[in-house]
Amino acid sequence: MSDVLTHSIVEAGRWIDSQGWCPATGGNFSARIDASSAWVTASGRHKGELTPYDLLRVDSHGQVINSKLKPSAETLLHTALYALDVNIGAVLHTHSVASTVLSRLEASNTLVLHGYEMQKSLSGNNTHDATVAIHIFNNTQDMQALAQQLKNTWAKSPLQWGFLVRGHGLYAWGKDMVEARRHLEGLEFLFACERDMMLLKR
Amino acid sequence: MSDVLTHSIVEAGRWIDSQGWCPATGGNFSARIDASSAWVTASGRHKGELTPYDLLRVDSHGQVINSKLKPSAETLLHTALYALDVNIGAVLHTHSVASTVLSRLEASNTLVLHGYEMQKSLSGNNTHDATVAIHIFNNTQDMQALAQQLKNTWAKSPLQWGFLVRGHGLYAWGKDMVEARRHLEGLEFLFACERDMMLLKR
Amino acid sequence: MSDVLTHSIVEAGRWIDSQGWCPATGGNFSARIDASSAWVTASGRHKGELTPYDLLRVDSHGQVINSKLKPSAETLLHTALYALDVNIGAVLHTHSVASTVLSRLEASNTLVLHGYEMQKSLSGNNTHDATVAIHIFNNTQDMQALAQQLKNTWAKSPLQWGFLVRGHGLYAWGKDMVEARRHLEGLEFLFACERDMMLLKR
Amino acid sequence: MSDVLTHSIVEAGRWIDSQGWCPATGGNFSARIDASSAWVTASGRHKGELTPYDLLRVDSHGQVINSKLKPSAETLLHTALYALDVNIGAVLHTHSVASTVLSRLEASNTLVLHGYEMQKSLSGNNTHDATVAIHIFNNTQDMQALAQQLKNTWAKSPLQWGFLVRGHGLYAWGKDMVEARRHLEGLEFLFACERDMMLLKR
Repeated sequence: MSDVLTHSIVEAGRWIDSQGWCPATGGNFSARIDASSAWVTASGRHKGELTPYDLLRVDSHGQVINSKLKPSAETLLHTALYALDVNIGAVLHTHSVASTVLSRLEASNTLVLHGYEMQKSLSGNNTHDATVAIHIFNNTQDMQALAQQLKNTWAKSPLQWGFLVRGHGLYAWGKDMVEARRHLEGLEFLFACERDMMLLKR
Repeated sequence: MSDVLTHSIVEAGRWIDSQGWCPATGGNFSARIDASSAWVTASGRHKGELTPYDLLRVDSHGQVINSKLKPSAETLLHTALYALDVNIGAVLHTHSVASTVLSRLEASNTLVLHGYEMQKSLSGNNTHDATVAIHIFNNTQDMQALAQQLKNTWAKSPLQWGFLVRGHGLYAWGKDMVEARRHLEGLEFLFACERDMMLLKR
Repeated sequence: MSDVLTHSIVEAGRWIDSQGWCPATGGNFSARIDASSAWVTASGRHKGELTPYDLLRVDSHGQVINSKLKPSAETLLHTALYALDVNIGAVLHTHSVASTVLSRLEASNTLVLHGYEMQKSLSGNNTHDATVAIHIFNNTQDMQALAQQLKNTWAKSPLQWGFLVRGHGLYAWGKDMVEARRHLEGLEFLFACERDMMLLKR
Repeated sequence: MSDVLTHSIVEAGRWIDSQGWCPATGGNFSARIDASSAWVTASGRHKGELTPYDLLRVDSHGQVINSKLKPSAETLLHTALYALDVNIGAVLHTHSVASTVLSRLEASNTLVLHGYEMQKSLSGNNTHDATVAIHIFNNTQDMQALAQQLKNTWAKSPLQWGFLVRGHGLYAWGKDMVEARRHLEGLEFLFACERDMMLLKR
């Protein structure tokens, strides 16, 4: 089972790098093992060149299990997501130009998407004629604080598919790596469309 | 024969994915088998990772022939096209940023292209100095209704090469997969040019 | 020798397609054999999927030598270039979005580039602090007329590196395929910069 | 050791070319051998197609050591960097559209980046909430003069990560090739974001 999970992270990394969404060692990825542990990427590795030896296990508090590798600084957000929703099986945190720029230009705490067929790539959506709201958190280097904000926001209303961190990038998730990749790819397509709409509508 | 057809769909999927035109399981492709049946892609598959086992046969009404796979929701548009024009041999439905955005920005039901040499990539055009009109349908989740609109529009004047669905994407076709791919690639190039002209002319 | 030449055309096609500069069977390429003949690409082939069997020989008037293949309609421009300058060894005609759009937006018959280090990729330039002028011909489907315009323009002042055809694309050349590719790549980079300068300077 | 270094340059070239940052033989790369010598790329080679035979050694004054190859004209900037900072192990000079255009549009001698998480890809930065200043030198064909300007600027305040040359491109460096590539990729991502911010903020 671990082989399948670690392979799914390594493969996701190569694909995400080919799209230009994890430059310069940016990004971090994880896959849930069970109720209390997950595989996560080690800090500082280029995410397009991962091997299984660049992954480590962490418990539900983000503590390293039996490894000398250093987990990503943002591991707490991954473990927070696994704790918040038992149905989340994989989390992909990426850095694209569109997600970085749109999250800076949107002054509110929500990027609203509407009227795109591609919204249907996000589980539970079955029409373009609805609104998809993606939460935007302000960026901070205090991961404890950001994880707490995530929990507070979720307590009011659970987030779906992903959230943005301003000037930073996207967290996308799914019940498994296949769905997490679909949500990531769908959201990035929607961001690219929204960027073009902003440019062309003026 | 079926091997050639199914292979042509699988190959088209890899190429279309490499261009970024079928993200997040979006898009669906088909190839006519005979007067009353066609191969179509199953629902929910990533179109860049197709195998022949992700394809199924449907009859001219879009009904599944001898398969447990679920056809794409948009199969009715494929079979409508095959019924409307006996010379159509392959249909490619794709989602690009340019086709999504241009179809939203054009308020009328026609995107008019003029003055591009690339118009000659669309069969029957032999000059840049003419007008290519690409019909735009409003998006809907009611495929029966959209197929009917397509038939009504066609009855007034047959469409050529492809049509857009607003905020959704492109349907392109040809007498065979080679021509369908050429029409797709030519139209996407023209959309990319038109997008740049809109941006730069202002 | 012919093997080297035909291979150089096939390889150029794959690279040009990977850059997106010959979509939908667009473009045509050639390599001089001797004073009175050249290899050219056959009409209608996708230029990213060429084999040596998609090439034919033409004489200095563009007439086919011993082949059943149909040469590109624009063969006359290739042979005109070989006649105009004995030092031209290879010609690459491509369709990029930037060359298509810039040639439409520039109202005069010259696109002027200045201040780019990349100008030095064009043979004979040794500084950014000079002007590179790329001639723009109006598009026409009359290749005899366009070839004649090329000759008339050249008679007044020989062109260097390449020229644009409005709404159509670029012809780039060099003493051999290596230089033709460098001129093509350098000019496309300069067009991409110029497009961005137009967008960002406003 | 030399094999590792030369291989690192060849590999960097392939990757940089795949990103479109060394078109048309542009760019030059180097890796420090010891206190008084470095491997550098020969002039005129396409940097995406390097082999170890396209590399030569130069001393700390940029003089060729035991080779018939001609070093890049900009070798003096590489050796100046190695002399200025003993911790620099690799230097990558690239030409991207974004670095070319942003360096022309910024009228001052500094491009200031702020508020991007990706700033953390540049060694020594541990927050987005700081300012990264990238020096811009005016372009010149006099490499002795440019190397002297670099030394003068450095004497006032050492540069970090990289600098721009106006209308020309980026020099990025690191303690080794891995870090130089990370700085290059991080800076190019930041330039792409900054370009989009300029376009979208208006």
